[in-house]
Amino acid sequence: MIRVSVLGAGGRMGTEVVRALKDAQDMQTALLLGPDDDPSSINPSNTDVAVDFTSPDAVLRNTLTLIGQGVHSVIGTTGWTKERLDQVRQALDGHPGLSVFIAPNFAISAVLADRFAAMAARYFESAEVVELHHPDKVDAPSGTALGTASAIAEARRQAGMGPMPDATQQPDPSRGRVVDGVHVHAVRLRGLNAHEEVLMGNPGEQLTIRADSFERVSFMPGVLLAVRRAGSIPGLTVGLDHYLF
Amino acid sequence: MIRVSVLGAGGRMGTEVVRALKDAQDMQTALLLGPDDDPSSINPSNTDVAVDFTSPDAVLRNTLTLIGQGVHSVIGTTGWTKERLDQVRQALDGHPGLSVFIAPNFAISAVLADRFAAMAARYFESAEVVELHHPDKVDAPSGTALGTASAIAEARRQAGMGPMPDATQQPDPSRGRVVDGVHVHAVRLRGLNAHEEVLMGNPGEQLTIRADSFERVSFMPGVLLAVRRAGSIPGLTVGLDHYLF
Amino acid sequence: MIRVSVLGAGGRMGTEVVRALKDAQDMQTALLLGPDDDPSSINPSNTDVAVDFTSPDAVLRNTLTLIGQGVHSVIGTTGWTKERLDQVRQALDGHPGLSVFIAPNFAISAVLADRFAAMAARYFESAEVVELHHPDKVDAPSGTALGTASAIAEARRQAGMGPMPDATQQPDPSRGRVVDGVHVHAVRLRGLNAHEEVLMGNPGEQLTIRADSFERVSFMPGVLLAVRRAGSIPGLTVGLDHYLF
Amino acid sequence: MIRVSVLGAGGRMGTEVVRALKDAQDMQTALLLGPDDDPSSINPSNTDVAVDFTSPDAVLRNTLTLIGQGVHSVIGTTGWTKERLDQVRQALDGHPGLSVFIAPNFAISAVLADRFAAMAARYFESAEVVELHHPDKVDAPSGTALGTASAIAEARRQAGMGPMPDATQQPDPSRGRVVDGVHVHAVRLRGLNAHEEVLMGNPGEQLTIRADSFERVSFMPGVLLAVRRAGSIPGLTVGLDHYLF
Repeated sequence: MIRVSVLGAGGRMGTEVVRALKDAQDMQTALLLGPDDDPSSINPSNTDVAVDFTSPDAVLRNTLTLIGQGVHSVIGTTGWTKERLDQVRQALDGHPGLSVFIAPNFAISAVLADRFAAMAARYFESAEVVELHHPDKVDAPSGTALGTASAIAEARRQAGMGPMPDATQQPDPSRGRVVDGVHVHAVRLRGLNAHEEVLMGNPGEQLTIRADSFERVSFMPGVLLAVRRAGSIPGLTVGLDHYLF
Repeated sequence: MIRVSVLGAGGRMGTEVVRALKDAQDMQTALLLGPDDDPSSINPSNTDVAVDFTSPDAVLRNTLTLIGQGVHSVIGTTGWTKERLDQVRQALDGHPGLSVFIAPNFAISAVLADRFAAMAARYFESAEVVELHHPDKVDAPSGTALGTASAIAEARRQAGMGPMPDATQQPDPSRGRVVDGVHVHAVRLRGLNAHEEVLMGNPGEQLTIRADSFERVSFMPGVLLAVRRAGSIPGLTVGLDHYLF
Repeated sequence: MIRVSVLGAGGRMGTEVVRALKDAQDMQTALLLGPDDDPSSINPSNTDVAVDFTSPDAVLRNTLTLIGQGVHSVIGTTGWTKERLDQVRQALDGHPGLSVFIAPNFAISAVLADRFAAMAARYFESAEVVELHHPDKVDAPSGTALGTASAIAEARRQAGMGPMPDATQQPDPSRGRVVDGVHVHAVRLRGLNAHEEVLMGNPGEQLTIRADSFERVSFMPGVLLAVRRAGSIPGLTVGLDHYLF
Repeated sequence: MIRVSVLGAGGRMGTEVVRALKDAQDMQTALLLGPDDDPSSINPSNTDVAVDFTSPDAVLRNTLTLIGQGVHSVIGTTGWTKERLDQVRQALDGHPGLSVFIAPNFAISAVLADRFAAMAARYFESAEVVELHHPDKVDAPSGTALGTASAIAEARRQAGMGPMPDATQQPDPSRGRVVDGVHVHAVRLRGLNAHEEVLMGNPGEQLTIRADSFERVSFMPGVLLAVRRAGSIPGLTVGLDHYLF
């Protein structure tokens, strides 16, 4: 039984985490902390792993406190800069075996799609990225799609590939945003949540990789996976792909 | 047995038509004409319907000749203007029962997708069009996609619908070209031929209509359908949808 | 302002209806009734349309009461037999202008997909149906998929079409259930809700029509549409397609 | 410049290979052999790599001859048994540095899809396979789909996963063929060629991997890749995935 405490337990993601812990047969809920609770109440006598879905303001202090307490962290909160990550690394120095895990995206399907796209890119003449989201999203294209496009571009560069074929004579916004040579399209549609499709083509063949996240609960398998792997890679780890392969 | 003559029988499309006629059990091939052959050799004693896949230069003269001969025309050749269509209409005046049929697109799947998109548009908050083609295509977006977007916009206007929801704060080419309020995206991918996807969304639901044309032969069922319906709508008819519903 | 009362307002679907009414700018919530409330409290002085998401046990009595009161009904409750429908028809006889509307499926996308499949069927050599649902569904294939397959088969019959091409030599369950000559496949996948894909093919071309229902709220646009159209078709009407075309 | 000879140069696949060699800027065509030509005319003075698309009858003799001549082989011909493979291995013993490469499937997209499915399988509760082919195919499901299903099942076994969730009460052919616990569905549709879709699901998320082979030319990138890698893995290698990762 892994004893798991949750920081930000009353928030939108925290609530999902608490629910997921109840359903996980190899875990039990330890402490549930709200914004006014003291993170130093979490320690090895009551907790193996702490999950943090708080706020950019609180997360660094929480993380340093938990390192001091000797408890593994799994963090979905954003707001990390190089400086903040360095502070975490330094704090971890005196704690061999302890792990801090941060994921920008806990959706396993999205992380896998991104990785597969990068692995496949060198074998296809053409590749484009289509992301589809609900129409309340304020930015376009999504950060995930930008990341996927860059990964594809990098894989092509390493393989010594030139630009993709494209005979379009008149530049047109219908061809999307060009990120590092990779065209990225953003669809906004009521009823969707967060989706990404990577399309790759060669003469006579196509490979399509699609990740759909229908709702917030889609992040929970990734969170539980990170909880289970806590400690398996000591030190600071950023990105769920490190636990997937 | 419908006796069918082909003008432009040696061209890319003409060759497919000749092949399709051989496989059609209710048709037989009559005359096959190349660019130097005289269209007036086609007449009711040898031909019921003439199929024209020639060139914009030749098609008007061919059509007027065939009207004079009293033979139905099925035409896939482009280059029609309002003036040319008017000439055809005038010529048909003295020939009740005779039909001239012109189709910009003979792919049944594409024509149906376009029609279904127009029928469904009024029932969805959001709608976008994604067209996908081979990378040798010189224009973007495709004429078909522009037509579909306009049809969706027109259906929304008639239903008194306002603009679609879109919270994107910074205009970005990833959102595609906006045609009459409908976002159109164009993907270019080696290995594809001609494809169109219409995406429509409401809270919690999505309707997707996709037409794939993998190769030139995909136009043949539409050509054969037009041949079979020749004469059923006397006069000039433009667009395969008139024969589909 | 359409005044709408809800029977079964505390149930899963009723709760969604109450929420949807709040968001609809042309409607206002009138009475909300639970299982112990008296339906005869609903009358023209407080209600234009009553929405019923109760139980097969209660719905007939509710409907007859509302007819007596002179209030339009929009009903999503199941359990209707030919006998029950006849009782409703008889009761409506004395109430010209009054409408009772029953829908087995309020998802507009599913109803449109079904209709489009039937319209397109005669133009394609091949057609198969793939339905995809969450793995807690106890029946396979879904009733909706069976209905779509029958509609396709009926359209082919009317067009005088023979069986679809299929060279499979050894019958195999991978080819799905054959409904009236149409192959139906059922996928069960954690994370999905209710989805249907109709695939149609001709030489070189394919038409795909897909309806996705991601969650219960997807039925609300259909419910609101039926409320708005209440009275437009007097008498008993079964099926949302009657309001869509 | 890689000098490439083709055995079976007049066959359907051989013709495609010859065409692909002409387009490949780093290769030049050496000898083109028909069924009556002597494979021993191929030797290091004229050929670096020989591509064999002949027949099960001829391929073993060809391969042993080419090993004797000291020329690398890339083989798409079928009909290999354990015994035949052992003969090739033995013959290779005396030729360090020489390679014989055999691929059951040269479509890069299909090989990648298979590999990605196996890599992803352990992270999803549910997984099913849908293969789609032209209706002239005599077997169902396809060998490729069976292979993918087995790879998914094996990955789940290694990860200690139990059976997938499925509440279906009445066994029904719509649920497909169950291969090692993985449901496999086969669609047959005029206009398609060879396609496979792997669907994986977790609460709230889905991963879809799809490989489309539209025509024979889709195998050429895989053939050229194998030609370029010839010699990079000495000895006998079976399966394109060995060259992809």
